[in-house]
Amino acid sequence: MTARVRVPATSANLGAGFDCVGIAVDRWLVAAVTLGGTGISIRRRGTLNAVRVRADQDLFTRGFRAACAAGGASPAGGGATIEASSDIPVGCGLGSSAAAIVAGALLADAALELGLSRSQILEISTAIEGHPDNVAPAICGGAVLSVQTPAGLVASSLRVSPAIELLIAVPPFPNSTKAARAALPQMLPHSDAVVAAGRAAALVQGLATGDGALLGAALDDVLHVPFRRARVPGYDAVVAAAQSAGAFGATLSGAGSAILAIAPRERSAAVGAAMIAAWRAAGVEAELIRSARPVPGASAHRGPSISHPVPSESP
Amino acid sequence: MTARVRVPATSANLGAGFDCVGIAVDRWLVAAVTLGGTGISIRRRGTLNAVRVRADQDLFTRGFRAACAAGGASPAGGGATIEASSDIPVGCGLGSSAAAIVAGALLADAALELGLSRSQILEISTAIEGHPDNVAPAICGGAVLSVQTPAGLVASSLRVSPAIELLIAVPPFPNSTKAARAALPQMLPHSDAVVAAGRAAALVQGLATGDGALLGAALDDVLHVPFRRARVPGYDAVVAAAQSAGAFGATLSGAGSAILAIAPRERSAAVGAAMIAAWRAAGVEAELIRSARPVPGASAHRGPSISHPVPSESP
Repeated sequence: MTARVRVPATSANLGAGFDCVGIAVDRWLVAAVTLGGTGISIRRRGTLNAVRVRADQDLFTRGFRAACAAGGASPAGGGATIEASSDIPVGCGLGSSAAAIVAGALLADAALELGLSRSQILEISTAIEGHPDNVAPAICGGAVLSVQTPAGLVASSLRVSPAIELLIAVPPFPNSTKAARAALPQMLPHSDAVVAAGRAAALVQGLATGDGALLGAALDDVLHVPFRRARVPGYDAVVAAAQSAGAFGATLSGAGSAILAIAPRERSAAVGAAMIAAWRAAGVEAELIRSARPVPGASAHRGPSISHPVPSESP
Repeated sequence: MTARVRVPATSANLGAGFDCVGIAVDRWLVAAVTLGGTGISIRRRGTLNAVRVRADQDLFTRGFRAACAAGGASPAGGGATIEASSDIPVGCGLGSSAAAIVAGALLADAALELGLSRSQILEISTAIEGHPDNVAPAICGGAVLSVQTPAGLVASSLRVSPAIELLIAVPPFPNSTKAARAALPQMLPHSDAVVAAGRAAALVQGLATGDGALLGAALDDVLHVPFRRARVPGYDAVVAAAQSAGAFGATLSGAGSAILAIAPRERSAAVGAAMIAAWRAAGVEAELIRSARPVPGASAHRGPSISHPVPSESP
């Protein structure tokens, strides 16, 4: 009994969409599971080489076991071997944790034929991750708004104008999401909360219409970035460089360390180059990820294990 | 030199879109101006009978004079007579002030051929009103998101699903917007601001898609309604009645006193009846306004004065 899965990277927040908006990014985690043996073992390749976690505490394992529990399966008796490879930078605000959780849950669902719905996978994975903004686009693809409602967690796919492009500059150092969360204040002026709400609305409308002024306002977040940006050396210079080169704006990808810009398509090459150059001027060799086209969500298949899972080529 | 204008009522906030989202409502202020004489005189009919303001301090006059100033005209030498009639309830959260300001500005623009753009009318009127959320839909029609950006005030028309309908129950007592603003706290927990931002995003997405769960979350505001609802007797009962009858949710229209519900089209008649019945049970005879179809924005024309401006029929 084997299965394989492919889950994209994701960038959360997009400025004012704090904890509720995320978008799939064209980097991939691929993994395969083979049931059998005892306990769960994990073989990691690519960026996952950097992960130093015992297999029974790994996010793959937690996603896998939570799906088993939700599906009424008991994998405790039988073990599983997970082979995983990824080109998603780890700890840089590109949803590597969400990808691993979703991969684990989908591998269990496919290999054990649990028949879980996407909505169940979303709930399971969000419970482990703590918030849905990376998990939802990792599952659904594209840009997604996730909101808790009395009817449960709603993940709604957002329209994204084909006239815009995302550019993500990834430095070689990670940021701690936990520390970034601890930097947030307990209280906020009511007037800032009003501005934040208007800009969150502007993000949804700006993505749909490609309106540069709305996107510029949306990327100029007041809820979290002001308290986190000092943790990412070079942040101000990279954001300023992106704007000077024609981006509507730029902000932290998730809690950082990566920086995301949104630009009109015709300026995107210049914006990406400017971001990399600005970081280089600060002594940082960053890597550029461009996401010009909508990136699909996770897919999983039951079937023979692939012996050497490797990230697929960009579409 | 004469001109006439027609401006719709508006409902602002729609729950989580505090100070940034508004929608045109099918009630109208119509007015005409005749230039000549000295000073500005105003004749009021309909709901405007209740207005007790000296003509030189009236919102029509302020809009008129601000447009003259922006357009480089000096009406100080010549006077103007404004005849105005309205069926927009006054002081109930339906944009009667915004309608008067916009009417005054558009009358000046048309009668004096100032050639102001819609964007200039928006800026002028917002400066007088203090916030754009009623002014923008009064000018543009439909639902509008208004956001301050470095490039100026952006008013962006929102998609509204044809599957939803607005129902507004208007009690016979007004609410003071000034007092309602004073009820807001200085500081807010950061976690509430995060919820508020997610729900503002949910409002834009819910209006566009008609997703009932998103609209329900969006109408359950945490930024202003919790601090204002006690000022509107019967609020909780009317909101509960709307929800029981099938509305996605209900909230204050603007700062109240009117209550707005959003419902699936097939439940709208029942929701409207339930809101009126709930208010009647509390001893209040409220009036129902339904806005099923998109309501157009203001229109102004240069030409002969109409001797008895009356609200036009619903489309």
